[in-house]
Amino acid sequence: MKKSVFYHAGCPVCVSAEHDIISLIGKSNVEVVHLGEQKTLIDEAEQFGVSSVPALITPNGNVLHINFGASLTDLKA
Amino acid sequence: MKKSVFYHAGCPVCVSAEHDIISLIGKSNVEVVHLGEQKTLIDEAEQFGVSSVPALITPNGNVLHINFGASLTDLKA
Repeated sequence: MKKSVFYHAGCPVCVSAEHDIISLIGKSNVEVVHLGEQKTLIDEAEQFGVSSVPALITPNGNVLHINFGASLTDLKA
Repeated sequence: MKKSVFYHAGCPVCVSAEHDIISLIGKSNVEVVHLGEQKTLIDEAEQFGVSSVPALITPNGNVLHINFGASLTDLKA
């Protein structure tokens, strides 16, 4: 299976969701990207349709916004 | 593993998220509850912390609100 990508920014909501997603899907099936530390990837995330974190991109390219931690606009600031 | 519970209300956002979640986690690991058809379960969902659908309750009781289809308040109407 192609990997899912989990975008987060280190916020408490993100960390909690990350634990949940990894325990549901399995660590080896998820690539975790910290947009607070890798700001160059924010534009790429936006192109995938991500508007806030935490968010999960499924292997078929759908975006699941999970709860709400921060908007990408805030991360750019 | 204890099952997750996926709450939805048949809306397009819900159906799309349901497909994604089932393909990520596996059909046998998710109990799907249609709150539009089983309105008596809305109160129970609220007690778990669900405020909108689609939402997933993880086996350890955390609530993941996934995207946004409808609020539980609207479902009660």
